Amino acid sequence: MKLLEVYRERIEHELKALAQHREPVGLYEPVNYVLSLGGKRIRPALCMLGCSLFDEARVSGSLYPALGLEVFHNFTLLHDDIMDGSEMRRNQPTVHKKWNDNTAILSGDAMMILAYQLISKTPVNVLVPVLDLFSQTGLEVCEGQQYDMLYESRNDIEVTDYIEMIRLKTAVLLGASLKTGALIGGASPAAANHLYLFGIEAGLLFQLQDDWLDVFGDAATFGKNIGGDIVTNKKTFLLISALNNLSPAGKKELQSWLDKKVFDREEKVSAVRNLYEDANVSTIAKNRMDAYYQSALLHLEKAGGSAPIQEELRAFTRQLMERSR
Amino acid sequence: MKLLEVYRERIEHELKALAQHREPVGLYEPVNYVLSLGGKRIRPALCMLGCSLFDEARVSGSLYPALGLEVFHNFTLLHDDIMDGSEMRRNQPTVHKKWNDNTAILSGDAMMILAYQLISKTPVNVLVPVLDLFSQTGLEVCEGQQYDMLYESRNDIEVTDYIEMIRLKTAVLLGASLKTGALIGGASPAAANHLYLFGIEAGLLFQLQDDWLDVFGDAATFGKNIGGDIVTNKKTFLLISALNNLSPAGKKELQSWLDKKVFDREEKVSAVRNLYEDANVSTIAKNRMDAYYQSALLHLEKAGGSAPIQEELRAFTRQLMERSR
Repeated sequence: MKLLEVYRERIEHELKALAQHREPVGLYEPVNYVLSLGGKRIRPALCMLGCSLFDEARVSGSLYPALGLEVFHNFTLLHDDIMDGSEMRRNQPTVHKKWNDNTAILSGDAMMILAYQLISKTPVNVLVPVLDLFSQTGLEVCEGQQYDMLYESRNDIEVTDYIEMIRLKTAVLLGASLKTGALIGGASPAAANHLYLFGIEAGLLFQLQDDWLDVFGDAATFGKNIGGDIVTNKKTFLLISALNNLSPAGKKELQSWLDKKVFDREEKVSAVRNLYEDANVSTIAKNRMDAYYQSALLHLEKAGGSAPIQEELRAFTRQLMERSR
Repeated sequence: MKLLEVYRERIEHELKALAQHREPVGLYEPVNYVLSLGGKRIRPALCMLGCSLFDEARVSGSLYPALGLEVFHNFTLLHDDIMDGSEMRRNQPTVHKKWNDNTAILSGDAMMILAYQLISKTPVNVLVPVLDLFSQTGLEVCEGQQYDMLYESRNDIEVTDYIEMIRLKTAVLLGASLKTGALIGGASPAAANHLYLFGIEAGLLFQLQDDWLDVFGDAATFGKNIGGDIVTNKKTFLLISALNNLSPAGKKELQSWLDKKVFDREEKVSAVRNLYEDANVSTIAKNRMDAYYQSALLHLEKAGGSAPIQEELRAFTRQLMERSR
């Protein structure tokens, strides 16, 4: 079994026990609910791999901070779901639907504190840099969410704005997870920083693949309904690129679909996908993803460390490129 | 000028600069707004006094954690105001009224991270115990808010439940502020713990005085409208005590006021206040406050430290007893 899988199992086991037997039940039950919904546990697994890359003997010291990163990630999902009005998450009702907004706010707050409690268990020799990285990253994730909400009501978003938004909202937490592990594993500042940048590039790749799968993915294998971003006019890399690359006539047609308040779902998805094909945005996105992939691998190589774990991280990155859901 | 006043001015000055010049403005403007609304800055001032009590030379090391405690307190007000639907705070519109719920949720999240960033600047020799105390206290404050919301819909709340709720919601943060200062000032574990308990007792006293002023205070000097708790049926120490101490007839009359959906505000406040007087709850509350006051002073004495600062903390506690608003 790959180390990544070993770590995931350990993490899954620890998360189950985290908020058990705490009172009041009304505060902690939603925390247990969210943590039991599963997910790929990518961030904590990357944290532990980042540690093993430099010193596998220190990996037990990375377990609690790894859990803290996962709890923080789930806290952001909980509060984002209130803000975005999302009713389902991982095929289950979201906390604010199953309970109510107040419960989701307060249980989310408690989760952020639980995350810091776990981060505070970082081995004391690197506690200060790990804490600083965690707080800096946490603020950046909030900033990313703010930009994401802001951009929904603006029509002048460029590709660079979008990339910066997803860097903040998604990529920095992957980078910070890897760097936290690296710091605990005793990496040099330069090596830890290369691993951080590996995580950033992998995170950007991950999000662009998400955007791509929403439009061009196979409905049978891709978890959510294909075309969800098109239906809601979500300003993804694909939409912004299409607006930039279409002929005036094509752009006008795309804009008319964006402006329609009443439409047939399938008709809109199909029409917009055709316009995306006219604009060649699938290739543009795939080229961009390939650039992030190459850059990620370069940073990984420069980070150094154990060859077999380098190979695991390369395989992980390849899977991001090749995933179909 | 008293040290408390010196510290308050320093804190006020530092808070102004805290979230300036950060982007996106939409995330940080509400943070600046909340921090500029004023308040007594009791928690950070107590933190710095708690440090000076044991070693005034180390007080600069307590400034950032003191600010972290104040930012955390203001974060709880921001999120509590959403949950409670409060429209005004310190004579200004609350963040969720001035902006919206999403802004209040996300800016509050950013404030909690900013609070941890400041706590993380605690001198490294006591960083771990200070962080642990802060996280433990933060969870307790969330638990207190959960009990407070839960008790609104329950009719079987006893005085001990209420005291435990206000201990969690209000008193532990005062205790933690003082203990954080004490730890930075180099207090022994026993002395730091006595100062913590001094803060707990002072916090309970503070909240009971708040309850008392709402009913028996002088409208001209007490900031908010007298009787607000009576109008909303808030389960305060006074209401619970009255229900326990009234004759069956008096209890029935009080219950009928609690059940009325339509009533004249002044009439209800006056009638309930009369019933409170029948039940002697003003004396019961004052006796309870006096017990907390005596216990607070005993813990303060046992904490030891500088005599002039002991005297400042005693004067502060007297002011809590004697305040009229």
